[in-house]
Amino acid sequence: MDAISVIRTKRDRGELSPEQIDWVIDAYTRGEVADEQMSALAMAILLNGMNRTEIARWTAAMIASGERMSFGTLTRPTTDKHSTGGVGDKITLPLAPLVAACGAAVPQLSGRGLGHTGGTLDKLESIPGWRALLSNAEMLDVLDTTGAVICAAGDGLAPADKKLYALRDVTGTVEAIPLIASSIMSKKIAEGTGALVLDVKVGSGAFMKTIEDARELASTMVALGTDSGVRTVALLTDMSTPLGLTAGNALEVRESVEVLAGGGPKDVVELTLALAREMLDAAGLKDADPEKALADGSAMDVWRRMISAQGGDPDAALPVAREQHVITAPSSGVLTRLDAYDVGVAAWRLGAGRARKEDPVQAGAGVELHAKPGDIVTEGQPLLTLHTDTPEKFAYALQALPGSYDIAPGGTPFAATPVVRERIA
Amino acid sequence: MDAISVIRTKRDRGELSPEQIDWVIDAYTRGEVADEQMSALAMAILLNGMNRTEIARWTAAMIASGERMSFGTLTRPTTDKHSTGGVGDKITLPLAPLVAACGAAVPQLSGRGLGHTGGTLDKLESIPGWRALLSNAEMLDVLDTTGAVICAAGDGLAPADKKLYALRDVTGTVEAIPLIASSIMSKKIAEGTGALVLDVKVGSGAFMKTIEDARELASTMVALGTDSGVRTVALLTDMSTPLGLTAGNALEVRESVEVLAGGGPKDVVELTLALAREMLDAAGLKDADPEKALADGSAMDVWRRMISAQGGDPDAALPVAREQHVITAPSSGVLTRLDAYDVGVAAWRLGAGRARKEDPVQAGAGVELHAKPGDIVTEGQPLLTLHTDTPEKFAYALQALPGSYDIAPGGTPFAATPVVRERIA
Repeated sequence: MDAISVIRTKRDRGELSPEQIDWVIDAYTRGEVADEQMSALAMAILLNGMNRTEIARWTAAMIASGERMSFGTLTRPTTDKHSTGGVGDKITLPLAPLVAACGAAVPQLSGRGLGHTGGTLDKLESIPGWRALLSNAEMLDVLDTTGAVICAAGDGLAPADKKLYALRDVTGTVEAIPLIASSIMSKKIAEGTGALVLDVKVGSGAFMKTIEDARELASTMVALGTDSGVRTVALLTDMSTPLGLTAGNALEVRESVEVLAGGGPKDVVELTLALAREMLDAAGLKDADPEKALADGSAMDVWRRMISAQGGDPDAALPVAREQHVITAPSSGVLTRLDAYDVGVAAWRLGAGRARKEDPVQAGAGVELHAKPGDIVTEGQPLLTLHTDTPEKFAYALQALPGSYDIAPGGTPFAATPVVRERIA
Repeated sequence: MDAISVIRTKRDRGELSPEQIDWVIDAYTRGEVADEQMSALAMAILLNGMNRTEIARWTAAMIASGERMSFGTLTRPTTDKHSTGGVGDKITLPLAPLVAACGAAVPQLSGRGLGHTGGTLDKLESIPGWRALLSNAEMLDVLDTTGAVICAAGDGLAPADKKLYALRDVTGTVEAIPLIASSIMSKKIAEGTGALVLDVKVGSGAFMKTIEDARELASTMVALGTDSGVRTVALLTDMSTPLGLTAGNALEVRESVEVLAGGGPKDVVELTLALAREMLDAAGLKDADPEKALADGSAMDVWRRMISAQGGDPDAALPVAREQHVITAPSSGVLTRLDAYDVGVAAWRLGAGRARKEDPVQAGAGVELHAKPGDIVTEGQPLLTLHTDTPEKFAYALQALPGSYDIAPGGTPFAATPVVRERIA
């Protein structure tokens, strides 16, 4: 077995054998297959694809590269959610405590942001004192005592994926559905959750720009999960415009707390409840009532306990950026479009995201929306507020925004389209 | 400008801009673009192609990465030949002195073998004392005094190609026509030859297995040379069966000397003369008579002077392998097929070639043919003789040979098909 013959097989549109897949993932993890060989293989996979049998084996080989966790000691059923990433996607923050308040155990091993999509851990780190890094024992303890935990995934889970993901990031091979699916699912299956709900974003602010690509990714992941004994469901949700009214770390925490307090933007509440119902259903808790858990404060109680258990102060004031810049509506009419990708890039450039893994993020930076598609706007009213600690970044952030919205003069306001577009099970 | 955006352009079937090409070649040579990024780009080029404009710019950028030589001080016109590599392809050895004997200057900057095709330098190094490595001044001196020189290309010519070739070799990206064409032509154009004849092999023992691929490669290279002011012609020649009756280093030198002495196998003589006529014609020496130069010993004189000038003893006995193994014909009839690739692999496994650049080769190892397609063979007669210093390799070499030939019982003998299949100018 050698790397060149594996690369040639895929380059020439062949099917990789189980032995080739097992060997190449193991040899890459051990450093016997070089980065330049794996990146050539990744590009061949991106351009020539893998079938379901290959993807399943590739995922299994990545799981086998590391440890497998188990939540067998918990009395509650475990249920997890994974989002493919979007702009203003703070859903994990209200969702995990909400589902825990309804009786499930929610282990959310989360990541950091890279590029225009934010990262759950970056958002929570804007809460003074909160720690993302927990040992396995600490993680189980928080999960057991509060019902939910949001923390960084340990190094032991699917190390092959960790190495491959960093490589894909610098070699233009991120956007391969077989590699995205196996990357996500190897970690979720290794984590040992009993049920999993996938939030597959589609639209300008998502990796998947078309509904066809999103369907393909979702059905690939659902099959991988189901075949591994994880009850898996996917929702295809809209990411043509940002979720809620904020994109940025502390800004999104504030909005999440509003949702937990029974308020918050309609689309965030709608998606949080839709995902909560799926997670509870997949966990076998058919009679749970997440709407009630939001209304009666029990979800907020879990949030406060979960944040405290990881060193955070749920009552502390959240950081606010030092400088603001307001963009006003240039005309009156109905806002017909506000582009998720452009807002994500602006937030990223303001300091909310990072260009390199080792870069720090600004807790207060980001973009605040004052109107959503369908709303009436009046000339001169605030449309967007940009937040940053480093005002020299305003000019760069503003370059992302011309052409990012449309205002139809004299139009009639309309209700936002439902966030959930399709369900795949 | 960054590597990922260049990779994405080609990945998504776009055309690379001149600025992207110049930047990526320069940055790769300097080490700013990493190997794993260039290999992903090479795979994207292999699968999605480059158009003629891109290939021309890519070639120019590789030339610009190093020095350009000049033969302007020579009184004779320069003319060069390049073969894409085959099994038993010793043509450079009789050809260079032959063309020099007819009045041209022949600077043959050659390479070593890798894989199943042999290398000209490896062959000549079987002559006791002969040195492949010359300084630029030594090279010009041998060329000036004898009319021909065969030596290693200096490190200064197209260093980008050198680095990229080594990368392609380990990443399954050798077989990309745009990359093969630009690799060959960047070195030949930088070398400064006035005329160039390309021997593009087609068949099982060649990189190009089909006539369509060979035509595409040949016409791409002819256009690159012509556009750079080099008079360039290509012959598409057969490589379905080995050239001549030997594949291996000293074995092929012996056969080349037979040709220079006026004998030698018919196909080797035929191809040597066809290429000589093209080289002389491209150099403007229309009245030269290469057949006469073979017959009257003047080509042999140049050979002896050229070998001596590089430290070799043209009268020394050539190395002979310590062990032989004879394969006999299993039945009587007409040999209808003898596969070039299989013979090349057998010769390589016997020690004539190398698996890694740093491996040594055996001077005496290789395969001797006792019949060619079209010949009558009798059951029990020798068909192939395998030569090696390391008899434990016989078994491995023999594994390459079952199925490598066909004998038609009671068939009628036939004349070999012409070696030259097409001419592209």
